[in-house]
Amino acid sequence: MKTVATLEPLTTRLLEIQRINSAASVLSWDQETYMPAGGGEARAEQIAVLQGIAHEKLVSQDVESLLSQWVDPATGQATDTAGDAWDEPSRSLLREVWRDFSRAKKLPSDFVVQLSRECSLAQQVWVEAKEKNQFTKFLPNLRTVLDLKREEARYLGYQGSPYNALLDVYEPGATIAGLQPVFAALKTRLVPLLQRITQSRVQINDGILHHSYDQTRQLEFGRLVLTAMGYDFERGRLDLSAHPFTTSFHPTDVRVTTRVHEQELQSCLFSCIHEGGHGLYDQGLDQQYFGTPLGDSVSLGIHESQSRLWENCVGRSRPFWRFFFPILQQTFRDQLHGITIEQFYGAINRVQPSLIRVEADELTYNLHIMLRFEIEQDLIEGKTQPEDLPAIWNQKMKEYLGIVPPTDAEGVLQDVHWSFGAFGYFPTYTLGNLYSIQFFEQAMRELPNLEDEIATGQLMGLRRWLEQKIHRWGRMFTPAHLAERVTGSTINPEPFLNYAEKKYGELYQL
Amino acid sequence: MKTVATLEPLTTRLLEIQRINSAASVLSWDQETYMPAGGGEARAEQIAVLQGIAHEKLVSQDVESLLSQWVDPATGQATDTAGDAWDEPSRSLLREVWRDFSRAKKLPSDFVVQLSRECSLAQQVWVEAKEKNQFTKFLPNLRTVLDLKREEARYLGYQGSPYNALLDVYEPGATIAGLQPVFAALKTRLVPLLQRITQSRVQINDGILHHSYDQTRQLEFGRLVLTAMGYDFERGRLDLSAHPFTTSFHPTDVRVTTRVHEQELQSCLFSCIHEGGHGLYDQGLDQQYFGTPLGDSVSLGIHESQSRLWENCVGRSRPFWRFFFPILQQTFRDQLHGITIEQFYGAINRVQPSLIRVEADELTYNLHIMLRFEIEQDLIEGKTQPEDLPAIWNQKMKEYLGIVPPTDAEGVLQDVHWSFGAFGYFPTYTLGNLYSIQFFEQAMRELPNLEDEIATGQLMGLRRWLEQKIHRWGRMFTPAHLAERVTGSTINPEPFLNYAEKKYGELYQL
Repeated sequence: MKTVATLEPLTTRLLEIQRINSAASVLSWDQETYMPAGGGEARAEQIAVLQGIAHEKLVSQDVESLLSQWVDPATGQATDTAGDAWDEPSRSLLREVWRDFSRAKKLPSDFVVQLSRECSLAQQVWVEAKEKNQFTKFLPNLRTVLDLKREEARYLGYQGSPYNALLDVYEPGATIAGLQPVFAALKTRLVPLLQRITQSRVQINDGILHHSYDQTRQLEFGRLVLTAMGYDFERGRLDLSAHPFTTSFHPTDVRVTTRVHEQELQSCLFSCIHEGGHGLYDQGLDQQYFGTPLGDSVSLGIHESQSRLWENCVGRSRPFWRFFFPILQQTFRDQLHGITIEQFYGAINRVQPSLIRVEADELTYNLHIMLRFEIEQDLIEGKTQPEDLPAIWNQKMKEYLGIVPPTDAEGVLQDVHWSFGAFGYFPTYTLGNLYSIQFFEQAMRELPNLEDEIATGQLMGLRRWLEQKIHRWGRMFTPAHLAERVTGSTINPEPFLNYAEKKYGELYQL
Repeated sequence: MKTVATLEPLTTRLLEIQRINSAASVLSWDQETYMPAGGGEARAEQIAVLQGIAHEKLVSQDVESLLSQWVDPATGQATDTAGDAWDEPSRSLLREVWRDFSRAKKLPSDFVVQLSRECSLAQQVWVEAKEKNQFTKFLPNLRTVLDLKREEARYLGYQGSPYNALLDVYEPGATIAGLQPVFAALKTRLVPLLQRITQSRVQINDGILHHSYDQTRQLEFGRLVLTAMGYDFERGRLDLSAHPFTTSFHPTDVRVTTRVHEQELQSCLFSCIHEGGHGLYDQGLDQQYFGTPLGDSVSLGIHESQSRLWENCVGRSRPFWRFFFPILQQTFRDQLHGITIEQFYGAINRVQPSLIRVEADELTYNLHIMLRFEIEQDLIEGKTQPEDLPAIWNQKMKEYLGIVPPTDAEGVLQDVHWSFGAFGYFPTYTLGNLYSIQFFEQAMRELPNLEDEIATGQLMGLRRWLEQKIHRWGRMFTPAHLAERVTGSTINPEPFLNYAEKKYGELYQL
């Protein structure tokens, strides 16, 4: 039996490439957290150089000749010689390295460097454009990035739409054809559900979340919850950034960020739990495979399932607050005096069409994604021109959510993603939402005491289950295969829709 | 006339190498400021990979063939073809690139990676050994690093002592033979001066520095002084670290750190001013030459002259405090109520033999350096064994300063330098002290209102003078040539000794 050890000359090279990529991630983390404003241009160049080198090393003759000994280029699968088969880890490792290699090979190194540089710059312009509410300021950079992404799709090749080439980067196997029925199912049941909620005689007041909450204490509480979740601060940090994110340089150094607003108690709280879910995934990857696909997360959809599972299934549940609400009350005595768990539970689960995706409730969130999914598909296919974006955005907001952003900053400029070229990224948020319910319901089946554990602040059982079932496998299985292996089913909107109808039917007495 | 533009294929490569080095510096900055404890091992590997790549790119065939068109390998100088000479910047650029290239060429890439990795690891062990006061814990790593540095000296080649090969890395042109007379002159006049001070009937009490000072306010005051000095926070940051340092990724991103202790007012204050002096140098480098030696600082000695000039000539002077003491008094009303500028001036200039170099006064500081200069020379030459270091350290402390450290943490383990292989670095601190006086006295001659400006908080005139005379030239001139160009003299202990005898003669009424 041939094992991963057989692949040593290849894995040594992969490890070096991963270290360069990790270095680039440190630079990006710094850019979002501590870098002084003036340093942006130089930073874009530094990151571009590192990404260029990592790309060159991956597509090198050296890696190619190693791979071609072991992989059949026609199928992308490991080639077995009679009587000396590969074990499963090596087989997966080769399949995934081949995937990365053959994709990368299609992109010229110059193109990779240019794309990296333009995306870093566009991101910085986007920050300013959003601040000043000037879409036209961002438009030239958006055009450049969009042209480059369409060029990328041409380099990569695709069936059907060029958008499929980009989707597959973030969610291996995802296609427009696969996603459309999922979004259609969501639309069919979520839109009526939302209407019934809006018309319900139950009106939830979330005013309690908007009192004045000391920012330092909010952060301390976030830190407490992260610790309870098993996020290891010896191998991580919590910092502030304009947009919360998680980044990993190695399982021993996985960082999360949050934001904190004095009059938005839910903002820091759920950012911490959400990013903590991402952080646990990255801290739970198998260190022995670091640098190889087996030590890497499998897809953005699965990654997001971890953050949403913790944020929604745990963090917006009654059992969780049975334990944590008294502590929160201790932390903010004046503000939360006399509030019941039930009132707090209602406030953090209030459904309300709103402008900003990251502040949306569990239900309307997916409509925000659907809108982006449709728009970016048309942008990449050339059916929509960048200059028309604000109008199209506002029209779709009206159609799906019944509200129109008063400014572009609260509309089309709200998300960073397109500025750094992440077309095809948004749908993974909805995949994450759906997977999170599939996984959590499976955990409930396999851990019969889970609810009681959560209600007593014991979150480690769930964390261990996720680590064993999902985190430690890296890219051993494809996302669809992993979901099937854990839950018996690939992506499926049913569990989410059932969960939503039950939870919100009860909350709004529908 | 051939200009730097002629060198474009070379400068493009240098720029890429510089960006990789800048990335490695970001990783080091993060290691010292924010990295979680668990991330150290992975970080050492990331930095080692980047340094290895930068090294490989510098010694590449590509760079060699470009250089060999333009530089005479026998002299290391640009080769002129009849009627088409190089201008001065190109000539300097070629001389300095050749210096870097030919040094790097002597070191195998594997060796560079190994040295980088061992130094990162040894530094982390040193932190722990110092905390626990266990020299033996650090000893194996010190041995490894020392062996590697002796190997480095053999690779580089040297005349006389292998220590000369290492000195020259930090201070081009410096040798034992050149430094010994400097230290001898210092010893001859500083030791008797110190004796007279100790026996003086004037006793200075610095108790005022050790009251309780709010740490946030200390940092705010440090920030205020940095701003007054012209340190640009749009292109920089102030953070906390165990040991204050300055690092630069580009003139648009130059970061300083400080430390702050509640009962040591001078610690944060003078760290800020000192590192601010370094920061101004790096922010003052010429951006158009970034990536080439003309956009790089010339030597550690000259770099240290900038920090010491601001720290001592400005920050420990009466005119400076005439402006800043009332502000400091406003900041700390209770603690500084009724204190005169003269009392404060005395406290921050008190001379007292002490254990820790970084806390030493202007006079004893150089004796701390002399001790390290002698010890590291013997270590590299193999005359001293690492295991004997604590005993030798304590014996020399007794001899030069009349005191013996009660623990190794306050003795031989106090400095980080040897852990990361920086043998030959310490003497540049004394060079910086001497140069700082030479430069400042020249500034006084050329800026007749300087004292008045400082006394009214206007520090920009001095900053501009330093930028014009020193910062913007990068490595255009050798350190000795630069000093001569600015002051009419190369390194010279006389001005410092005269300054010291005058200042402390007056303060201690000798």
